[in-house]
Amino acid sequence: MKSLVLEEKHKLSLRDFPIEREEAMGPRDVRVKLHTVGICGSDVHYFTHGQIGPFKVERPMILGHEASGTVIEVGSQVTALKVGDRVCMEPGIPDPNSRATRLGMYNIDPAVRFWATPPVHGILRPTVVHPEAFTFKLPDNVSFAQAAMVEPLAVGVHAATKAQVRPGDFAFVMGAGPIGLVTALAALAAGCARVFVSDIDDAKLEIAASLGPITPINVTKQDAAKVILAATDGWGVEIVFEAAGSPKAAATIFEPLCPGGRVVLIGGQSQPIAYDAGAAMVREARVENIFRYAHVFPRCVAMLSSGAIDVKPLITRTFAFDDSVRAFEIAASAPKGEVKMQIAMPQ
Amino acid sequence: MKSLVLEEKHKLSLRDFPIEREEAMGPRDVRVKLHTVGICGSDVHYFTHGQIGPFKVERPMILGHEASGTVIEVGSQVTALKVGDRVCMEPGIPDPNSRATRLGMYNIDPAVRFWATPPVHGILRPTVVHPEAFTFKLPDNVSFAQAAMVEPLAVGVHAATKAQVRPGDFAFVMGAGPIGLVTALAALAAGCARVFVSDIDDAKLEIAASLGPITPINVTKQDAAKVILAATDGWGVEIVFEAAGSPKAAATIFEPLCPGGRVVLIGGQSQPIAYDAGAAMVREARVENIFRYAHVFPRCVAMLSSGAIDVKPLITRTFAFDDSVRAFEIAASAPKGEVKMQIAMPQ
Amino acid sequence: MKSLVLEEKHKLSLRDFPIEREEAMGPRDVRVKLHTVGICGSDVHYFTHGQIGPFKVERPMILGHEASGTVIEVGSQVTALKVGDRVCMEPGIPDPNSRATRLGMYNIDPAVRFWATPPVHGILRPTVVHPEAFTFKLPDNVSFAQAAMVEPLAVGVHAATKAQVRPGDFAFVMGAGPIGLVTALAALAAGCARVFVSDIDDAKLEIAASLGPITPINVTKQDAAKVILAATDGWGVEIVFEAAGSPKAAATIFEPLCPGGRVVLIGGQSQPIAYDAGAAMVREARVENIFRYAHVFPRCVAMLSSGAIDVKPLITRTFAFDDSVRAFEIAASAPKGEVKMQIAMPQ
Amino acid sequence: MKSLVLEEKHKLSLRDFPIEREEAMGPRDVRVKLHTVGICGSDVHYFTHGQIGPFKVERPMILGHEASGTVIEVGSQVTALKVGDRVCMEPGIPDPNSRATRLGMYNIDPAVRFWATPPVHGILRPTVVHPEAFTFKLPDNVSFAQAAMVEPLAVGVHAATKAQVRPGDFAFVMGAGPIGLVTALAALAAGCARVFVSDIDDAKLEIAASLGPITPINVTKQDAAKVILAATDGWGVEIVFEAAGSPKAAATIFEPLCPGGRVVLIGGQSQPIAYDAGAAMVREARVENIFRYAHVFPRCVAMLSSGAIDVKPLITRTFAFDDSVRAFEIAASAPKGEVKMQIAMPQ
Repeated sequence: MKSLVLEEKHKLSLRDFPIEREEAMGPRDVRVKLHTVGICGSDVHYFTHGQIGPFKVERPMILGHEASGTVIEVGSQVTALKVGDRVCMEPGIPDPNSRATRLGMYNIDPAVRFWATPPVHGILRPTVVHPEAFTFKLPDNVSFAQAAMVEPLAVGVHAATKAQVRPGDFAFVMGAGPIGLVTALAALAAGCARVFVSDIDDAKLEIAASLGPITPINVTKQDAAKVILAATDGWGVEIVFEAAGSPKAAATIFEPLCPGGRVVLIGGQSQPIAYDAGAAMVREARVENIFRYAHVFPRCVAMLSSGAIDVKPLITRTFAFDDSVRAFEIAASAPKGEVKMQIAMPQ
Repeated sequence: MKSLVLEEKHKLSLRDFPIEREEAMGPRDVRVKLHTVGICGSDVHYFTHGQIGPFKVERPMILGHEASGTVIEVGSQVTALKVGDRVCMEPGIPDPNSRATRLGMYNIDPAVRFWATPPVHGILRPTVVHPEAFTFKLPDNVSFAQAAMVEPLAVGVHAATKAQVRPGDFAFVMGAGPIGLVTALAALAAGCARVFVSDIDDAKLEIAASLGPITPINVTKQDAAKVILAATDGWGVEIVFEAAGSPKAAATIFEPLCPGGRVVLIGGQSQPIAYDAGAAMVREARVENIFRYAHVFPRCVAMLSSGAIDVKPLITRTFAFDDSVRAFEIAASAPKGEVKMQIAMPQ
Repeated sequence: MKSLVLEEKHKLSLRDFPIEREEAMGPRDVRVKLHTVGICGSDVHYFTHGQIGPFKVERPMILGHEASGTVIEVGSQVTALKVGDRVCMEPGIPDPNSRATRLGMYNIDPAVRFWATPPVHGILRPTVVHPEAFTFKLPDNVSFAQAAMVEPLAVGVHAATKAQVRPGDFAFVMGAGPIGLVTALAALAAGCARVFVSDIDDAKLEIAASLGPITPINVTKQDAAKVILAATDGWGVEIVFEAAGSPKAAATIFEPLCPGGRVVLIGGQSQPIAYDAGAAMVREARVENIFRYAHVFPRCVAMLSSGAIDVKPLITRTFAFDDSVRAFEIAASAPKGEVKMQIAMPQ
Repeated sequence: MKSLVLEEKHKLSLRDFPIEREEAMGPRDVRVKLHTVGICGSDVHYFTHGQIGPFKVERPMILGHEASGTVIEVGSQVTALKVGDRVCMEPGIPDPNSRATRLGMYNIDPAVRFWATPPVHGILRPTVVHPEAFTFKLPDNVSFAQAAMVEPLAVGVHAATKAQVRPGDFAFVMGAGPIGLVTALAALAAGCARVFVSDIDDAKLEIAASLGPITPINVTKQDAAKVILAATDGWGVEIVFEAAGSPKAAATIFEPLCPGGRVVLIGGQSQPIAYDAGAAMVREARVENIFRYAHVFPRCVAMLSSGAIDVKPLITRTFAFDDSVRAFEIAASAPKGEVKMQIAMPQ
């Protein structure tokens, strides 16, 4: 009955942590027993730095927001779920009355409450109460481990959706971390004929190259734009996804881009990036900036179930919940070749 | 050195047929020796009916427009192709100065000249002169037979492009003929999580079901809309593709469609269809009407090469050129279970 | 303190009609004293026919859904409105938790409750309780009469939005009734350089021609497609709006349409329309089907205030509330040259 | 029979300048006698700096690219124009066979030849030979002076088109120079309810404020983002147009932008701009980068003719051709309150 609590920067403990408010069920809520929780870079960043941008850990906070589990209680007005259903959950809950939410863009509602973003607790704990509308039933052929990958996958699928991938496009994904790789998978699923993926870590690029028609580029050894232009008869790719969050990468987003191409900025940047307006202009580039995701969880579940996307190669290591502090310490060491590490909760 | 000539309705002959005008090379043209030619329903229709809509066979005409081959001569200004290149060709050549062409919609330029559409000859003949701009080099791993499938595949890919498929969409394709099946393949490649395909022929539906996450529906036994609504919790599919050219199917396009869904009308209709405006309205359906394709041949080649789309299961029979009259007679008999029949040209 | 009650088909009375349920205020509701109410064709149709499609008047129902008024009470959580604010109201209230609503398409949520659509009462009555989120404050320079035009105008603005009008487009609006004329105004405001409007009533066409760069076409005397093609060098218009609800008009929507053009079907149709799929195909027409409107009320108010749209010429007659039965009788007689008749409520 | 020749940086002369190559007519060309030519900032920049980016004046070059005139000769295949027609001309001629051109994006074809961009001559000369396809007939009610404004106006209309303005949007245009003002006019014509325009020159802002529902903001006295957020209840504008080419302005493009808003970068930037990726992300901003225009000249002519756009207030001064050197010297002095200066050619 323990939770993983970030007491303060650098200090994690596994302990009882009663959170009353969240445990009150509304009529449209369900209570979920957690089964698998993925470790995200943002969880690790709160552990190592105590804050991300304006969000600062000022009181003990439970970590974790990539989750699957089993419904153990349903509210009186719940219709689509029942006790025993295996589910995954979308970690952000918007205000249904905000202007952005009503327009269908609930992810950019400033009032959204998102797990493991101070002061909202995450879900490395026994159970959580969550709205039915943000809880998605799993088909039998989607495992809890795969389902806990839906959250990061949703970022890639949202990026590919915003990019308006057309069948036969070529794309370039900057960064072969978890978000880069789910973006590459999403780009392929969305119709790309080929995806170039760049990184500085050969181990990650090797995993990338195993995922489909993906050309890995180690930017410490090759000029990505040159490789891409040579492979496309000088035309370039239709889409560039910046998933590295690297200022250096961001400064070169237009070089491998074709006339009329699109760029999607996914990776967070702590400083303004150097945007080459001249290069953007002569291509009439369109740049999409995305924030998390909206409306894609059920789409991800459907694609995992149909086989359109396979995330299993990205799950490189699983820890028991009792080892979760060690799991975070390992994650914080930026281990080569690890993509997604997950924690199996006690059942 | 023979061609397959439709002398008049019901009368095909294999004979010498000198066509001078086309054989004059311009500086941006290439001459291609034909290798494989697919038989299209429109070729068969000219054979059996002598006309399609306003296009009437009034003089002997060579049939065939789905083709691959080898470059045997290049014009003085050709830069992207050389003798010996294996290629496929787009059969319609627009006027580059027309208003529609300049807007990028060359397929709906009224002045387009299209192979095997009277009075323009097709390519069941030894060689053809063609503009470099509409001739596409094949990668080594795309066979001539696959390449001759690019033309019908292009219809499906154009349909999926116009439908603006988003990853995780569900789609319904009406009709499991060659166009229906390439549309289903294109829809999956473009991101659909699942595609429902309907037909009245179980043999074709069996092929459909083998192509991926496809649910076959025999409409002589099942109500397609009911099957689809049951499988989608009453929501419906995001996209309906009408690829049967059936007035009866066209009258029901909105029934299985979700709110905000899109319909793509692909199949030709000889009479106005009964369009259920009320059903369209309450869903705010968007209906796209497509005509052939534009800009998708190189995309199809890339997807065949990368493995994103596999058309091999659709090629159900191949004939030697000497047997091409018989091939047309068989095709005209609407054989069960045949999808695409091709003719291998003498090399 | 009376309401205008449709007791049954053909029978209107002005009488006390207590409606308790609606008068209970929630914390995010406001209570509005009605000032001006427009008479819509649907109100008249319930009066003359007792039903529209599946919606049947089975119990006495208050009519009216085009309304402006003054806030006289606010709920405890209302923040954007205060007592004394002049407002107009959107007549349809969706379920915030439905799938369509969450996607931003609340107008096609099947659970929407819409004024004066059985069994929901309209607002030809002293006061109404309404959600703040669907109540819009009026700037000083927008009169109550103009504000009561926002509801029909919203249909035209939604149609122009769905049509994705680009600056300099040419458009054709079929029908010069209230909806046709607001659509013409919206099309001009949205960037059309010129709009053709057709009808059979010269008086309405004369009003149309006075509204801006509008070319009237009386279809009893002229062939609309010929007029339009002659005026556009044979190219046609980029957009056709069907706002007549006429099967005959609907059968000809593609004739004056340019390659790549868009059609918006606005008018309700009681039977399937004869859709010329061949004509749609050779143009690759896109057809949008719309249902009421979403998210456009504040846009309409802003355009009335800025002068981008002027609806005053469409308000052809105003009645005192005591004369409202007579007003409906006149409206039911389809008077020539009347566009919008309004009722001034007692203040 | 003289031309205005930029001999080298800072040195203009009015002299005979025979240019043979251009004067050879093709069958689809027309010869135009120039009537009115506007002075563009780029013409002035070549005069004062001798180059713009990579384009360097290395030989004497005729200036001018904003032009209207009269057809005095037509090629044998010209069908839409005849001698005596009053016309305006699009100054960039693409390669019809390039990939970008075929996709409909001829403006970003790298092979485009553009007037008064080295080594291509401009049109401050007696006559010019031009393709019919890029020469547009003027209606009687569009003057030569207005027609010479079509070229800059086209930039604004292209920007508004790319922004996908929806009726009732609010927009913000940074910069009240000629491009800023045509963009504001285009934004209003495209459906904006209100446009905010910023500059540092009160004289230009006064002209801006006279053009319609435009709110001027002098950024030396007011914080533009604060003014806009206050005027929009904290929501922001749907569209920001950067037309100042100012690095400082570019660094703040997202501050006044609403969730889901769009930014169009119009102004050239000599250095990478500081792009606030975090601010872009939380709004999911879409950024369009534009280069000149495509397909909008006939749209501009139609909107001038219909009255949808009135450019006359922007033409602040006209010079005789004999005074054109002085006109450039004045233009180079950045005179307060001047928007567009034009030169009347000898007739």
